[in-house]
Amino acid sequence: MGLIEDAKRGIVTEEMKIVAEKEGVTEDFVRRGVAEGHITIPVSPYREIKICGIGEGLRTKVNASIGTSTDFVDIDMEIEKARQAELAGADTLMELSTGGDFLEIRRRVIEATTLSVGSVPLYQAFIEAAQKKGGVVFMDPDDLFRITAEQAKLGTNFMAIHTGINLETMKRLQNQGRHGGLVSRGGAFMTAWMLHNEQENPLYAEFDYLLEILKEHEVTLSFGNGMRAGAVHDATDRAQLQELIINAELADKANDFGVQTIIEGPGHIPLDEIQANVVVQKRVTNRKPFYMLGPLVTDIAPGYDDRVAAIGASLSSAYGADFICYVTPAEHLALPTPEEVYEGVMSSRIAAHVGDMIKLKKRGDDLEMGHARRDLDWDRQFAVAMNPERAKKIRDERMPADTDGCTMCGDYCALKIVNKNFNF
Amino acid sequence: MGLIEDAKRGIVTEEMKIVAEKEGVTEDFVRRGVAEGHITIPVSPYREIKICGIGEGLRTKVNASIGTSTDFVDIDMEIEKARQAELAGADTLMELSTGGDFLEIRRRVIEATTLSVGSVPLYQAFIEAAQKKGGVVFMDPDDLFRITAEQAKLGTNFMAIHTGINLETMKRLQNQGRHGGLVSRGGAFMTAWMLHNEQENPLYAEFDYLLEILKEHEVTLSFGNGMRAGAVHDATDRAQLQELIINAELADKANDFGVQTIIEGPGHIPLDEIQANVVVQKRVTNRKPFYMLGPLVTDIAPGYDDRVAAIGASLSSAYGADFICYVTPAEHLALPTPEEVYEGVMSSRIAAHVGDMIKLKKRGDDLEMGHARRDLDWDRQFAVAMNPERAKKIRDERMPADTDGCTMCGDYCALKIVNKNFNF
Repeated sequence: MGLIEDAKRGIVTEEMKIVAEKEGVTEDFVRRGVAEGHITIPVSPYREIKICGIGEGLRTKVNASIGTSTDFVDIDMEIEKARQAELAGADTLMELSTGGDFLEIRRRVIEATTLSVGSVPLYQAFIEAAQKKGGVVFMDPDDLFRITAEQAKLGTNFMAIHTGINLETMKRLQNQGRHGGLVSRGGAFMTAWMLHNEQENPLYAEFDYLLEILKEHEVTLSFGNGMRAGAVHDATDRAQLQELIINAELADKANDFGVQTIIEGPGHIPLDEIQANVVVQKRVTNRKPFYMLGPLVTDIAPGYDDRVAAIGASLSSAYGADFICYVTPAEHLALPTPEEVYEGVMSSRIAAHVGDMIKLKKRGDDLEMGHARRDLDWDRQFAVAMNPERAKKIRDERMPADTDGCTMCGDYCALKIVNKNFNF
Repeated sequence: MGLIEDAKRGIVTEEMKIVAEKEGVTEDFVRRGVAEGHITIPVSPYREIKICGIGEGLRTKVNASIGTSTDFVDIDMEIEKARQAELAGADTLMELSTGGDFLEIRRRVIEATTLSVGSVPLYQAFIEAAQKKGGVVFMDPDDLFRITAEQAKLGTNFMAIHTGINLETMKRLQNQGRHGGLVSRGGAFMTAWMLHNEQENPLYAEFDYLLEILKEHEVTLSFGNGMRAGAVHDATDRAQLQELIINAELADKANDFGVQTIIEGPGHIPLDEIQANVVVQKRVTNRKPFYMLGPLVTDIAPGYDDRVAAIGASLSSAYGADFICYVTPAEHLALPTPEEVYEGVMSSRIAAHVGDMIKLKKRGDDLEMGHARRDLDWDRQFAVAMNPERAKKIRDERMPADTDGCTMCGDYCALKIVNKNFNF
């Protein structure tokens, strides 16, 4: 039996206890959240992981996506990326390889991490069709469902599945047009397939079958965002909203069937549309966990997209997004290096915390830092810093003569001057 | 005669024409803005600079602060920081040295830049008092006014002057207490002086005299924010608001007298108080240009404070802040290196642009990038990128086999798949 059914029957499972303990909420809060679909706890019968709850009332979580591409297939580097992501404090890992031996790469990465792992099964199905049959449009839906089950058995905890790109959604896209085109790989594969075969998306048409597979292997269904904007000028458009509406309907169905859900969201969104995206998403999905990809608030800063995403993600988590997918500085330019993976996770963790300061009023560490700075207590400052090593390194490289202060102000440290005169 | 008087008489000066041209607004819009104190154009009779307007209806500007401290005095490095700041696209430069030969450092830095330069004259006055008389509390107000005039003659365009920390403000601070203490060096020097001498702040008490000096040398008065919070838990507190009210009164007076003004603001502010800070600041100052320092939206990410400030600055510029002071990754830890100066400016420029996308609806470059990406036109992408070199470098290090796409998706580029099927 799955977590949702347990929760509905009033059973608090071990996973729910762990989440309650980690988050400082009651076990019953978590149980009710799981039962109602407001909280999702990715698990797998095939693998032990660091349990991580995602959803309402819980700390905002950060996902790091890694994976090979056709240009670069280096399993050791992928394992190093997984390691860097975990080191930097990612909560989950998506393994999105599109080059090399899929099964082997995923097996090795899964072995190398204790984090909850996600995948996108349709990549493998479409790419194998391209390799074996000469085109993604020759993908056989049976292979797609078979691969979904196979990936589940590797211990995959959640899967991004593009159910919402159906004929209805595609009509919206075609009627409307787009400035930045379609940038989701899954979305692109599926629309190409639908256009060529003049058939409905099998993940939509055979959704009940999909649910059976996911339920059997206890996989969390993360509704893919195939219509997400790839440019701020396409944000919050009719195609995106149409897909969201379809996914929201299916998510209720999944929840009733006992499959845990997450709903993915865009993408590229200008600052003044982020709140609307969160409110609408939460409303139409009946408060399912919201997985925000970025969002990027401007398109013109390639090379800095981790910082750009941190701006958007801070706001989206403040407004209620539960889970954010990191963006690395290499986004839009190249496959990220392990260092860029690390940087991307750090930027997202900052954003998640900034959001939690608002959403959950989690400001205790900030208060501690304020006091530690006032008291010029460097050990306490480092202890509460999100990345103590980085902070120490910068200070140690330029250690001041007077070790109370820092080299920024030297003898003229405001705090030292004032501490003599005030008694805060 | 100064710009304000010219503007009030209906004269459009050369500086106003340059600002109108650069910003794509009418000359009369700029003239009216200057007359009413909503727009400030720092100038100097002693030096030619790149003219830069700050205020309502204009692009958000970015300041980079540099300067020695008692631990590190290296003029060549300061010149390199000035160069890096300009290279990265800063609009103004504040030279805030507190160590070494002040006059010589400022002269050399001013020679090395074409940007508008700001200073804080009270640093020199207090530090010379400490050096020559054994304590900042022995500072002679006559020296402070003399130094203000001397710095003006070097070609300083704007000065941060701490007029608002008077006995009234200090009472608020003492009655209230603080989590993070007082973190403004100017604020700390002045409160220490006032407490020791049991006298009113001379910059407040002799404000008319100050205005005469500034008017004579055409210096823009940037009202210092001595009570700014140094911890998010002190944000928007009574001491900060009291200082703002005092400064707002004085700013009207300055404007009437023909001295251009800017009002500095905090500091450390949690995400949900930024809008209130901007609205209140704009309201009580009668829409004077608002110079936001940061703001930092969390205290616990030392080593990443440029990214943290970019989050706050994006929001504050979206809501109406006109001018933002950068923060470097070394903030709270050490004096920044030239590389950190560059990074800090880039983070702030991103924030300024993200704000301008909302405040001014400036989204043309984003639209161009969306189209260039859709068309896989890399030259156009680099041309419109905020930092083309950085973007090129990342892509070139990992150049794909098929040079249309990038190594992130390799053969399975969504855009390539979709462009074959759709006709956007």
